[in-house]
Amino acid sequence: MRKLIALFAAAALAVCSLSAQELANFAMGGGQRIVSPEVKDGKVTFRLSANYATRVQLSGNWMANPWTGTEEMTKGPNGVWEITLDAPEPEIYTYNFIVDGVAVNDPLNDKVQRDGTRYLNMLFIPGERSENYYEATKHGTVTYRWYDSPSLGISRRMTVYLPYGYEDNPKQKYPVLYLLHGGGGDEEAWTSMGRAAQIMDNLIEKGLAKPMIVVMPNGNPNQRAANTLGLETITLDRNNPATANAYVTSLVKEIVPFIEKEYRAIPKAESRAIAGLSMGGGHTTSATILFPGVFGYICPLSCGIRDSDHLDSDLQGIKKAGYKLYWIGVGKEDTGAYNGSLILDEALTRNGMPHTLYVSEDAHVWKNWRLYLNTFARLLFK
Amino acid sequence: MRKLIALFAAAALAVCSLSAQELANFAMGGGQRIVSPEVKDGKVTFRLSANYATRVQLSGNWMANPWTGTEEMTKGPNGVWEITLDAPEPEIYTYNFIVDGVAVNDPLNDKVQRDGTRYLNMLFIPGERSENYYEATKHGTVTYRWYDSPSLGISRRMTVYLPYGYEDNPKQKYPVLYLLHGGGGDEEAWTSMGRAAQIMDNLIEKGLAKPMIVVMPNGNPNQRAANTLGLETITLDRNNPATANAYVTSLVKEIVPFIEKEYRAIPKAESRAIAGLSMGGGHTTSATILFPGVFGYICPLSCGIRDSDHLDSDLQGIKKAGYKLYWIGVGKEDTGAYNGSLILDEALTRNGMPHTLYVSEDAHVWKNWRLYLNTFARLLFK
Repeated sequence: MRKLIALFAAAALAVCSLSAQELANFAMGGGQRIVSPEVKDGKVTFRLSANYATRVQLSGNWMANPWTGTEEMTKGPNGVWEITLDAPEPEIYTYNFIVDGVAVNDPLNDKVQRDGTRYLNMLFIPGERSENYYEATKHGTVTYRWYDSPSLGISRRMTVYLPYGYEDNPKQKYPVLYLLHGGGGDEEAWTSMGRAAQIMDNLIEKGLAKPMIVVMPNGNPNQRAANTLGLETITLDRNNPATANAYVTSLVKEIVPFIEKEYRAIPKAESRAIAGLSMGGGHTTSATILFPGVFGYICPLSCGIRDSDHLDSDLQGIKKAGYKLYWIGVGKEDTGAYNGSLILDEALTRNGMPHTLYVSEDAHVWKNWRLYLNTFARLLFK
Repeated sequence: MRKLIALFAAAALAVCSLSAQELANFAMGGGQRIVSPEVKDGKVTFRLSANYATRVQLSGNWMANPWTGTEEMTKGPNGVWEITLDAPEPEIYTYNFIVDGVAVNDPLNDKVQRDGTRYLNMLFIPGERSENYYEATKHGTVTYRWYDSPSLGISRRMTVYLPYGYEDNPKQKYPVLYLLHGGGGDEEAWTSMGRAAQIMDNLIEKGLAKPMIVVMPNGNPNQRAANTLGLETITLDRNNPATANAYVTSLVKEIVPFIEKEYRAIPKAESRAIAGLSMGGGHTTSATILFPGVFGYICPLSCGIRDSDHLDSDLQGIKKAGYKLYWIGVGKEDTGAYNGSLILDEALTRNGMPHTLYVSEDAHVWKNWRLYLNTFARLLFK
C-alpha cells in the first residue's frame, strides 16, 4: 500500500501543459461531436462541418465510376453536410469530399492511406472478404531498411516484414516473398494500400500461410526512397539497354543476396517467391525470364505479357530451371492486363507448364491486389 | 551485347495498364503544372487551384498566432489562388489551406505529417538550424515492433530505431535512448513530427552523437497502438492508484527488459537514457523517481515538476542511485512548463545535483522538441 501511494504521488508531480495536438484534436468538427464515416445497419453516413461552403460532394472509389463519381451532400441546419448511402460490399475503400470544387479529406477520420502523392481517407466495411485486412492479434515486425545498390550507385529503402516470432526463434529460417508495387507506387504501397502486414499477420495466425519474410522494395530505379522523403532522384542512361532492367537486375543481384545475408532467409529457389502488380507484374515476368531458377513461385498480377517470337523460348528457360507455382491474377474488366494474362495463360499451356489463371471481378484496383495477396499467399512454400 | 539485347527484349514484354495512381498523379492541379510550396530567394509561395471557391486562406504554424493565424490568398485569372510571404527562419513548419471555411491539405505537397488525428503539410526551410532534419546519407533502420505487456494485458506497438551499421556489426552492443511523446501523441510522433530518425542519422553520421538504439513506445497505457490502426482501447481501473503509473511501470518493468533481450543493448544505467516531452516529460520524472538507478541520463522536456514536500526526498533517491546527466529543456514562452522547469532546476541545485537547464525561445511546439533532441542527443553516453 505504501508503494502504491508513492507511485501515485510521483505521477501527480508533472505540470506539463496540455499539448498542442491534444487541444487541436478536441476542437475538431467545430466543437461538435459529429462522427464520420458512420457504418451502421448496412448504411454508411459521411459528415463534414462546412458552414460557408456552397456545394459539398462525396467522391468514393466504390461508385459506378471510381475515378470521377460523386454524390451530392446536403447541408443541415447546424452547418454539417451529410449523406447516407447503402454500404458497399465488404472491402476497404477510399473517399474524400469536394468542397466548392476542391478535394478535402475527412477531418474526423484518421484512417488515411497514401496513393502516390494523394492522401485519401479509408472506409472499412467489415465482412468475410475484408476480415484479413484488419489488425490480427499477433503482429509481425515492419521495418524500413536501406540497402546499397552498387549497380544504381545509391542506397535505397525497402520495407521488410518479419513474421510474428521471427526475433524469438533465432534458429528458424524463413522463406521470402518479394512483393512488388506498380507505377506511381513505392516501398510503402503494399503496406499502406495493400494491407500486406495485416493480411500476412492474419493468414499466419490462422495457420493459412507459412510464416515468411515479405520484402517490398522500391521499384523505381531512379528513386532512393518514396518521394515523400524528399530525396533527389538519379538520372538513368536511357541509351543503355540495361537501363530497361536496372531495377530487376538490382532486385535479383543485390536485394536477394542482401536479404539472404541480413535475415534468416532460406537461400533456395523453392523458398523464394516473386509477385508484383501492374509494373511490378512486368518486373515479375522480366525477373523470372532473365534470371530463371531464382524464384520458385511466380505471381504476376494485373499485368500479363506481350506476345513475341521469343516468348516460348523465354518460358522454356523457366520450365527448364523448374518452378513450384505460376499464379496469374487479373480482373476481368482490366482490359489490357486481362488480354495480356490470357496470352501468358495460353503460352504456359502451350509450353506444358502447370499454372493457375485467377480471374476476379473489377479492373486495375487495390481491391483486387489485396484479394490476390490474400489468395496466393496461402499457396506459397507448401 | 547479346545479353543486353535479351534484357531489353524481356522488359518490353509487359503490357500492364498505366496504374490508377499514376493517372491520378498526372491529373493533379487540374492538369496545370503549378508548384506549391515554392521556396525561393527568401520567399515562399503557396498555390491552390480552386476556381469555384469564394475565399481561400493560408494557415501556418509560423504565423504570429500559430493556432489561429491566417493570411488571405488571392485568386489569379487561371483559378489558382496564391500567396507569397517572407520565408520564416530555417525549420520545419506545418500549414494547410482554408477553402470557404474548410481545412484543406495542399494537393501538390506530398510531405505530410500526422499530429494526433490531423494530417498537415510540411514546409521545409533549409538552414543551419534545420540541417539535421533532412535525410542523411547513411540511414538507420526504423522498425515497428510489438511487445507483450502482462501488466496491461495487451500487446502494444513501439517504434525502434536501430543506428546505421547495427545489423552488420553483430558483436557490437549499443546504448539505448527511450524517447517519449506527449499527450495526443503515439509511437509515431517522434519519427513523424520529431524527425527523430533523421536527427539521429545525421548526428551519428557526423560523429556528433554515439550510435544508439532509440525506443519510442506508445505512452497511452489504454492503447495498443496509434489510433490510426483502429484497434480497440482498454479500460484502466481508475480506482487503482497504480493506474496513474501504469505506463511508466510497463516502460521500466516490461519495455526495458524486452529491448535488452531482443536487441544488442547494453543493460546498464550508464547506457540507458530517458527523455520525453510534455506528458512524456512527466513520464521521465516519474520513471526516474519511482525507479531510481535505471536510467543514467534524464531529460524532461517542456514539462518540469510540481513542488511538493516529498520532492527533495524523491530527488535524493536519484542522487543516491547516481546519474550521468540531468538535462531540462523548456521554451521560455511555455508558461506552466517553464515555471515547472524552474522548480525542478532549483530543487536539483538545492539537493546538490549537477544538471543543465536549457531554455529556448517559443512555447509548447515540435520546433522546440526537435531542437532539444538535436541538442541533448550529442551529450548522451559520453
